[in-house]
Amino acid sequence: MTEAEILERLSRRISLPRQSRLVKGIGDDCAIYRGRGAAEDLLLTTDLFIEGVHFLQSTHRAADVGYKALARGLSDIAAMGGEPSFCLLSLALPKFISAKWIDGFYSGLLKLAEAHGVILAGGDLSRAKQITCDIVCIGAVPRGEALMRSGARPRDPIYVSGVLGGSALGLATPRGAARRRHLYPEPRLELGKYLRKSLHATAAMDLSDGLSIDLARMCEASETAAEIDRVPQFRGATREQALHGGEDYELLFTVRPHTRVPAMFRGIPLTRIGTMLNGPGARVMMNGKPLAVLGHDHFRT
Amino acid sequence: MTEAEILERLSRRISLPRQSRLVKGIGDDCAIYRGRGAAEDLLLTTDLFIEGVHFLQSTHRAADVGYKALARGLSDIAAMGGEPSFCLLSLALPKFISAKWIDGFYSGLLKLAEAHGVILAGGDLSRAKQITCDIVCIGAVPRGEALMRSGARPRDPIYVSGVLGGSALGLATPRGAARRRHLYPEPRLELGKYLRKSLHATAAMDLSDGLSIDLARMCEASETAAEIDRVPQFRGATREQALHGGEDYELLFTVRPHTRVPAMFRGIPLTRIGTMLNGPGARVMMNGKPLAVLGHDHFRT
Repeated sequence: MTEAEILERLSRRISLPRQSRLVKGIGDDCAIYRGRGAAEDLLLTTDLFIEGVHFLQSTHRAADVGYKALARGLSDIAAMGGEPSFCLLSLALPKFISAKWIDGFYSGLLKLAEAHGVILAGGDLSRAKQITCDIVCIGAVPRGEALMRSGARPRDPIYVSGVLGGSALGLATPRGAARRRHLYPEPRLELGKYLRKSLHATAAMDLSDGLSIDLARMCEASETAAEIDRVPQFRGATREQALHGGEDYELLFTVRPHTRVPAMFRGIPLTRIGTMLNGPGARVMMNGKPLAVLGHDHFRT
Repeated sequence: MTEAEILERLSRRISLPRQSRLVKGIGDDCAIYRGRGAAEDLLLTTDLFIEGVHFLQSTHRAADVGYKALARGLSDIAAMGGEPSFCLLSLALPKFISAKWIDGFYSGLLKLAEAHGVILAGGDLSRAKQITCDIVCIGAVPRGEALMRSGARPRDPIYVSGVLGGSALGLATPRGAARRRHLYPEPRLELGKYLRKSLHATAAMDLSDGLSIDLARMCEASETAAEIDRVPQFRGATREQALHGGEDYELLFTVRPHTRVPAMFRGIPLTRIGTMLNGPGARVMMNGKPLAVLGHDHFRT
């Protein structure tokens, strides 16, 4: 089974009761909760980061593991235009891990947390064979204003932030800009708020598994198709890396047809890559040909 | 390092800003979040449940794993007197796991979720060497009313719900009542609300790691000491199992000195086991002698 199939099987068994305080359940970057009388909606997301699956001890120092575990979660808050507030961390560690490693891990995580005013508010500790981090990030957004994957409409222009493929390239190179990109992705929190408040983006999500698979997911959620004609490439990255490489943590978003989108936001390029079309959902074309969906899926065999 | 030492090192590095919407961070069963304008406080807790650490595939069927992963989280919501609302699940699975196992796991989890009106609202999926579940439970409690570990005062009577040691006994027996107790602990949600609303308990927590260590934690949080003189034992369990065995998921609580506590709540015995004393914190005496703290700690060497 693929991840999509597991989620599909699961979704069929779950339905949100009409009176639920949960505005959005499975199927977006975060779940959305609306507390009784609350002025803000709460965003909640959880992200696994596991040794041997998402990282290796030979490539990620302890502080790098802590940084990235949190960055992945903050990126989900950014994708919804939210303001992060706090996080919980479940951490399972093998027996041989040193106190120094643990201190380094927390240093990397807390440094990023402080930079964004995020508080580590709790979690759980356990043993495991592999270093296993599960970060829960909680953020807030004004009531009803969260950006979702499902809001894109036919004719909406499609944009990405930054340049793509850097993380995939960095995985294969021991140092340099691409390596730093792989190790220290920047959660696009300010950009996410700008997309929500100023551009009134119709849909947004973060690029965690690769443009081809993530855009297909946005199309599926929005019941649209997409036609793209270009993709901004990280310097030195191949076109394949830019189209299918994971972990860039840039934002993919759509706006209404007449929205003026600037070429840059605080030094980050915003590039139009294509246009949403009428469904059927989940069909992505590039220059007139179907684009293979090759992004990352843990469960694909 | 022990879990307590890791948490101690971590806590020293974190302080809650005065203006935070986080009412309670590290150090209780749940974190407490107070949304702007919200009538209710939100409770958030995360619990790992890992193959080879917390359970074995030879003793837990897929549905049992799903049940207990969620039951552990709901128990933390119960301990604070909360009403559970939804959960997020991070699930990492080895390659050999079958679709049937995955379906069984979700069946066990969703059955318990439905019984308590809890919605599975999202999560994450990954590969791992061991089956790894991290459940995030979110609940609500009227503003300012969450029961905490830290509220006990000298002279407060100490109570436990149910009978203890059943789960430890069940770990060692292949069938029977103790085995069922080990496999299917019942989150004491109705009791938790009763403690909050009717008994105005001064402190509460769930017994996950064993009475001796959990009572020491309550004393430390409340800056009290404790003297106990009895412990209600599960039929067939030893006194050691009742004092130090983990995973009973009963509630440990204190009330004001003159509060009338009934002997039973909906079929669950409520037993006075002792009294809180003036500090120093974290010293637990039983019949005049210091009680060894032998409960479960993943990181004790």
